[in-house]
Amino acid sequence: MSETLIKLRLFVDYDLVDGSAVLATDVQHNYLRNVMRRSVGDRVALFNGRDGEWRAVVSQLTKSRCLLTVEHYQRPQRLPPDIWLLFAAVKATAMNNIARMATELGVARLCPLFTEHTSVTRANTARIRANAIEAAEQTGRLNVPIVDDAQKLGDVMRKWDPVRNIILCAEKGPAKSFAEALSSNSYPGPWAVLIGPEGGFSQIELDALVKLPFVTPARLGPRIIRADTAAIAALVCWQNYFGDWT
Amino acid sequence: MSETLIKLRLFVDYDLVDGSAVLATDVQHNYLRNVMRRSVGDRVALFNGRDGEWRAVVSQLTKSRCLLTVEHYQRPQRLPPDIWLLFAAVKATAMNNIARMATELGVARLCPLFTEHTSVTRANTARIRANAIEAAEQTGRLNVPIVDDAQKLGDVMRKWDPVRNIILCAEKGPAKSFAEALSSNSYPGPWAVLIGPEGGFSQIELDALVKLPFVTPARLGPRIIRADTAAIAALVCWQNYFGDWT
Repeated sequence: MSETLIKLRLFVDYDLVDGSAVLATDVQHNYLRNVMRRSVGDRVALFNGRDGEWRAVVSQLTKSRCLLTVEHYQRPQRLPPDIWLLFAAVKATAMNNIARMATELGVARLCPLFTEHTSVTRANTARIRANAIEAAEQTGRLNVPIVDDAQKLGDVMRKWDPVRNIILCAEKGPAKSFAEALSSNSYPGPWAVLIGPEGGFSQIELDALVKLPFVTPARLGPRIIRADTAAIAALVCWQNYFGDWT
Repeated sequence: MSETLIKLRLFVDYDLVDGSAVLATDVQHNYLRNVMRRSVGDRVALFNGRDGEWRAVVSQLTKSRCLLTVEHYQRPQRLPPDIWLLFAAVKATAMNNIARMATELGVARLCPLFTEHTSVTRANTARIRANAIEAAEQTGRLNVPIVDDAQKLGDVMRKWDPVRNIILCAEKGPAKSFAEALSSNSYPGPWAVLIGPEGGFSQIELDALVKLPFVTPARLGPRIIRADTAAIAALVCWQNYFGDWT
């Protein structure tokens, strides 16, 4: 089996057990047949977020459908660390970068937000999810991050379970560096990272956030960095101290 | 002066002294007049990588040209840390991400490379530089990273000044995590980060690289991450230990 074949991984909704059949979605069917030019007998890897990774064989491939037969257990289910990314909705290109890169960095949940300075009026959850699935397939993860519908920052904070700490990317006001804030913290519970929109949080939002007992403000260096860069940088910092990069 | 006006920053080739005149380039002229709708009397900030940041006024604005007059010294020249990014040339979208995000993260020099598994045949240095200039203007830097013409990895390593340490993003073979490799290292000299192409370095390249006394291999987590994500993640790790993020 060539290396290319092993690398072709698909996320599916089906339960995965030895000998079970999986009907490819229209997108997967088109991808396998027309983009990757696969034929009957070729192998792919399947995962569903629950049953680990399985090798499957293309057992039927016609113009109208593609059937995969599960044939070999390859890897036990393992989850990336429990880190959430809360991020203000931004324009499509930046949003695609965030969904893809955060998935590669092992994020567990993507939570788009509307804030006072958010300039976009909607967040395309279906597109975020499609980007996250594609990235999960390519990065070798065994699950896909949960993607929430976009909510207002205030609503999310009001309902927040205080057991989950938040590290807030604060562009102004007193704040330690991310490295200092994380290395001096030994909180053993779950975490989230919170990133503002291109125009930053409003002063009212920042004042309210830093008063919350579960929020730690921190700074990502001395320069102005855009929302997608900030999201990635904050996740990398967290992975270095609390995640699976250590 | 509104906040929007202060935020409009332009990189120029001219020497900047009190009262001197700066002729906007065609791109800047179009940007000021047609995109940002500026008029005579409006203010912008100028920097050239040498003379700090100056406030200037739009003193003439016609269909054919825009003249700026330097009028007030705003910030002394300061440089980001001396960190270089060596990266295998990748497709345009990923290359644009690398140029923009690395500039926001304070990179001093961008060095595109051709490696064995590099799938693109040229690196558009002019476009990398245009992205770096735009990012430098928006991120608040007072210089623009140097952008090298693309060279072969082997040629760059043969001519390498061993005073500059390299942290190599290695996807396989024995390697510590980036955090471990950097936190246990106290090298006071300059550094570079080296990132491979989408297909990774070849075994021959990796074997040759890890034999070089100035190269430290390190790993960016347990997942496969794409070239642009890797470049950004590696720079963030370096900034946390040696750069201006501490």
